[in-house]
Amino acid sequence: MSNVVAVDIGGTHFRVGLFDGHGQRVHVIEDATDRSGGREWMLARVEREFRLLQQKSAEPIGACGISFGGPVDFTGQKVTSIATPGWESFELSAWVKEKLGVPCLLDNDANAGALGEFRFGAGRGTGSMFYVTLSTGIGGGFVSGGKLLRGKDTLAGEVGHLPMADSGPRCNCGARGCLESFSSGSAIGKMAQEWAERRGDVMPRMVELSGGSIERVTAREVALAAAEGDPIASRIFHDAARWLGRGLMSVIRIVNPDKIVLGGGVAQAGKLLLDPIHEVMEERKSPALPVTTEVVIAELGMYSALHGAAALALDAQG
Amino acid sequence: MSNVVAVDIGGTHFRVGLFDGHGQRVHVIEDATDRSGGREWMLARVEREFRLLQQKSAEPIGACGISFGGPVDFTGQKVTSIATPGWESFELSAWVKEKLGVPCLLDNDANAGALGEFRFGAGRGTGSMFYVTLSTGIGGGFVSGGKLLRGKDTLAGEVGHLPMADSGPRCNCGARGCLESFSSGSAIGKMAQEWAERRGDVMPRMVELSGGSIERVTAREVALAAAEGDPIASRIFHDAARWLGRGLMSVIRIVNPDKIVLGGGVAQAGKLLLDPIHEVMEERKSPALPVTTEVVIAELGMYSALHGAAALALDAQG
Repeated sequence: MSNVVAVDIGGTHFRVGLFDGHGQRVHVIEDATDRSGGREWMLARVEREFRLLQQKSAEPIGACGISFGGPVDFTGQKVTSIATPGWESFELSAWVKEKLGVPCLLDNDANAGALGEFRFGAGRGTGSMFYVTLSTGIGGGFVSGGKLLRGKDTLAGEVGHLPMADSGPRCNCGARGCLESFSSGSAIGKMAQEWAERRGDVMPRMVELSGGSIERVTAREVALAAAEGDPIASRIFHDAARWLGRGLMSVIRIVNPDKIVLGGGVAQAGKLLLDPIHEVMEERKSPALPVTTEVVIAELGMYSALHGAAALALDAQG
Repeated sequence: MSNVVAVDIGGTHFRVGLFDGHGQRVHVIEDATDRSGGREWMLARVEREFRLLQQKSAEPIGACGISFGGPVDFTGQKVTSIATPGWESFELSAWVKEKLGVPCLLDNDANAGALGEFRFGAGRGTGSMFYVTLSTGIGGGFVSGGKLLRGKDTLAGEVGHLPMADSGPRCNCGARGCLESFSSGSAIGKMAQEWAERRGDVMPRMVELSGGSIERVTAREVALAAAEGDPIASRIFHDAARWLGRGLMSVIRIVNPDKIVLGGGVAQAGKLLLDPIHEVMEERKSPALPVTTEVVIAELGMYSALHGAAALALDAQG
């Protein structure tokens, strides 16, 4: 059985990993993404790391799988990103096939994360699993009967744009009141910054943790301060997690999965995130409508999508 | 090929139909449900009408399918209703097999309606279809790849209990702000009655249409008055339909179906319901997140669930 190479292209970091035929991680190369370098820079790095791992590998590389941190047309196997210049309509799998000589399958990071956790992480053995990635934005993927549900426009699982309210903050997508604008890492950071700006007279713990600079407060500092018991940070995080809880209740009512797996950077907050979610689930269950879906943190941590890319590579290999 | 008998047991009406082996409706018996008669009355009527249709049928009856207007444990093939006394934990399929001598499959009315529209109605030929039944309450079912998604607790598709708000009217399920408490037939009727009571000085058109009696105003009178252009009724119906639109947007974001089919009594309002839904869809779409799911009214009208019961019977026959 050959080995495979998995690639996870994100806006701030990228990872290229060598996996064996059972999906076991052998070696990972990780670096910061140079956004200014655009597509050409990224492709050059993918090629370089691929060839490096190819040399390291005891077995030949049979296939490649790619997780892309942005919209992907799975059917056409191309990046459809309109936000990232240079990537629009780029046939990334065809490029791999031509440049690196192996078959390749490409998907967006939310679907890849779902596949990764389903095959190798917290979703192993479930009949159905919904994966939510909580990062700068919010994405998701639904695996049922071992298969990813893609949907009409390959947009199934887009829980970041669940309509939580008719009004509220404007989301990056242009609509108002999307889940992403209440519960994403960016939303949490922004709420903390707004709070700190309004109360210039006090120095909240989350600002202290970012070295005294309000504009450098992110969801990470809010989570850290909340974990220490800081009441302001706790309140901000709790509210964001409750909105997420309501979003997850929509998932439970619509597809009633065995498990919901929370991945991405914000999910590292663990209990801080899970407690308010369970609070909402408790409030909304009833004898006729029990809520038994298990909500857990991703097992593969920051590597959910990379493992998903490995799963894609194993599929591409056939 | 044998014929089958389909049964649709509802809280106000029941229907027993004879179908041919292609799912074509041959004959239907329809009557009001005597709620005070409870389970025994209903079973006696099912037996009587079944035997009547058996006599009418040119072919032998090969199987029976039942749609039940309340919670059903599909795996256990029993009614789990805790709201309707006498039906709790009743193994309805086993009763049919023993009493009427044919195999039987039972499901709840929302799932049956979904199956009916998918096999014989507006959902024919779709890759995935979400059915919503709008009646006293709101239910739903999701068919993907030709199969009904049941979910962990066979509660997939329960869109009536989508959490639309943290506060708001209390739902029958005990939680606050469920979609059912904003957009169901009962909710529309209740809002109209409350409006009429507050403004005892005027006689709104919807009260006129119910013979001057406020307590007899239902969603039907509100829809009729709205269709005539009455501004109060229009406003009430429009608001309810917009809440529904947001609920359907959650369905679109989570499973991204080819089509959403709206059935049940309230769906007879047609354009009055579809226009505000399309308004919400229009507001929430964006270039990266197009909203291309088609939302249509059920083709089988009041017979979606009965046709679904016929589909269940054909499945039971193997």
